Amino acid sequence: MSAPATHTDITPRLNINTDIARRMIVGFIQDQLAKAGVKRAVIGLSGGIDSALSAYLSAEALGAENVMAVRMPYKSSSEDSLNDAESVIQALGLTALTVPITEMADPLIERFPDMSNVRKGNIMARLRMTILYDQSAAWGGLVMGTSNKTEILLGYSTIYGDSGVALQPIGDLYKTQIRQLAAAMNVPQAILDKPPSADLWVGQTDEGELGYTYAEVDQLLYLLVDERYTLDEAVDEGFARPFVEGVWQRVKSNHYKRTMPNVAKLSLRSLGHDFLYLRDFTGR
Amino acid sequence: MSAPATHTDITPRLNINTDIARRMIVGFIQDQLAKAGVKRAVIGLSGGIDSALSAYLSAEALGAENVMAVRMPYKSSSEDSLNDAESVIQALGLTALTVPITEMADPLIERFPDMSNVRKGNIMARLRMTILYDQSAAWGGLVMGTSNKTEILLGYSTIYGDSGVALQPIGDLYKTQIRQLAAAMNVPQAILDKPPSADLWVGQTDEGELGYTYAEVDQLLYLLVDERYTLDEAVDEGFARPFVEGVWQRVKSNHYKRTMPNVAKLSLRSLGHDFLYLRDFTGR
Repeated sequence: MSAPATHTDITPRLNINTDIARRMIVGFIQDQLAKAGVKRAVIGLSGGIDSALSAYLSAEALGAENVMAVRMPYKSSSEDSLNDAESVIQALGLTALTVPITEMADPLIERFPDMSNVRKGNIMARLRMTILYDQSAAWGGLVMGTSNKTEILLGYSTIYGDSGVALQPIGDLYKTQIRQLAAAMNVPQAILDKPPSADLWVGQTDEGELGYTYAEVDQLLYLLVDERYTLDEAVDEGFARPFVEGVWQRVKSNHYKRTMPNVAKLSLRSLGHDFLYLRDFTGR
Repeated sequence: MSAPATHTDITPRLNINTDIARRMIVGFIQDQLAKAGVKRAVIGLSGGIDSALSAYLSAEALGAENVMAVRMPYKSSSEDSLNDAESVIQALGLTALTVPITEMADPLIERFPDMSNVRKGNIMARLRMTILYDQSAAWGGLVMGTSNKTEILLGYSTIYGDSGVALQPIGDLYKTQIRQLAAAMNVPQAILDKPPSADLWVGQTDEGELGYTYAEVDQLLYLLVDERYTLDEAVDEGFARPFVEGVWQRVKSNHYKRTMPNVAKLSLRSLGHDFLYLRDFTGR
């Protein structure tokens, strides 16, 4: 999957009005927590831009005193990540907690000496979810999601790990748009500038793992998803066919991460088939 | 929430044709795995009836050699549970693995000395999910769900823990019906006879924690869900009003466990709002 040679520049169409986005997301957070009867939020701060932006929006929506930032380093996590997370905690005045995951992860990792980095990364993501939900119960706050539209579409996430959250405040913003909103909200410059990484192993970068840049793939995803282009139409805009087909295949094959587990239907009214309500249903 | 005094006996309406249910679920498992391009399944065996039945159905659908049973005891788990799980492994001839979770759980549990049993139980459920998904990646099998309709409706589960699975083969069977099908499939008698328990702490039983029996609540849920009775109509059948209202409140307040996290809608086409496909979509 090579980068496209030359194509229409879609970048301008990805520009958002950051004032409106900020107000809509702040309102969404307030509304969702009010419906759940909760005043607080718990958020895992990785030191990256997505969780930093989620923290800024959560603090604006709920007040910094109602947002608990949890740092969960593994022994291989970079010191920079911890420091960048600390800069967000300091800037906003968040309640903060650090719970290292090394002691929890290593008994499992050491049991399987040939474990791949991907398996290790997934274990770390799920242990972090476990800690955040435990703090959610202890502190009475909802677990804030930090996933963006690019990674949800690409399935570049760990199911029941980083995607295991109570709500997704920035899940409708492409990474390109995350950067715009984060800059507008004065997220620390060091966080804006560094290459995106899940920091699951030393030297990992998102773009290295994906094989293309966010700047490129966001343009393609915008055409395919938001503007409902066909694959052929995207190719006609100058995007290389293997890139278009490879990205769309990835969107499709990871769709299971965006749905509830299927229930085998046996009765007249089955969960996920006929028993379907909005999250906040109040009927009957 | 006291048990109802006297009501119409709904039990006969919960009777299922076990031959048909068995064939439908076996077909469902085969179909779901074929769509995912996978031949194997990974299942956590607790020693209880739900996971035992899931294992029997999975072995029939895929062949015992394609089903890996994983036992994941905590130090307080009962020896009987391990033995009951072993009886299923032996009866079916499953590939088996035991991964204790004590070493993973205790660093977190010991960090918070006032931790409640419920928090501990949720941590254990999420660590088990973590191990099952790791084996899913290592062995190339889907993680089989073991949730039943009663517990999914009541929200008697750990979000991203035991409910964190790839498919739910027995999720449309009430506990009462699980017992019928498990008996028909010759699940070991000791498993059929023992009181249902998540075995998260010593002496825990489902019915003690819920405050009513499955035999009672299944009848009520069947009326409310499958037969679409109103709460008043259920009371007219002789179910005590506090029981009816308490159960329905529980169904409603746990509905978030049955939906994907909400995404704040900002664009023309948002995940979970307008970008909605079946799990196995192939379009465009």
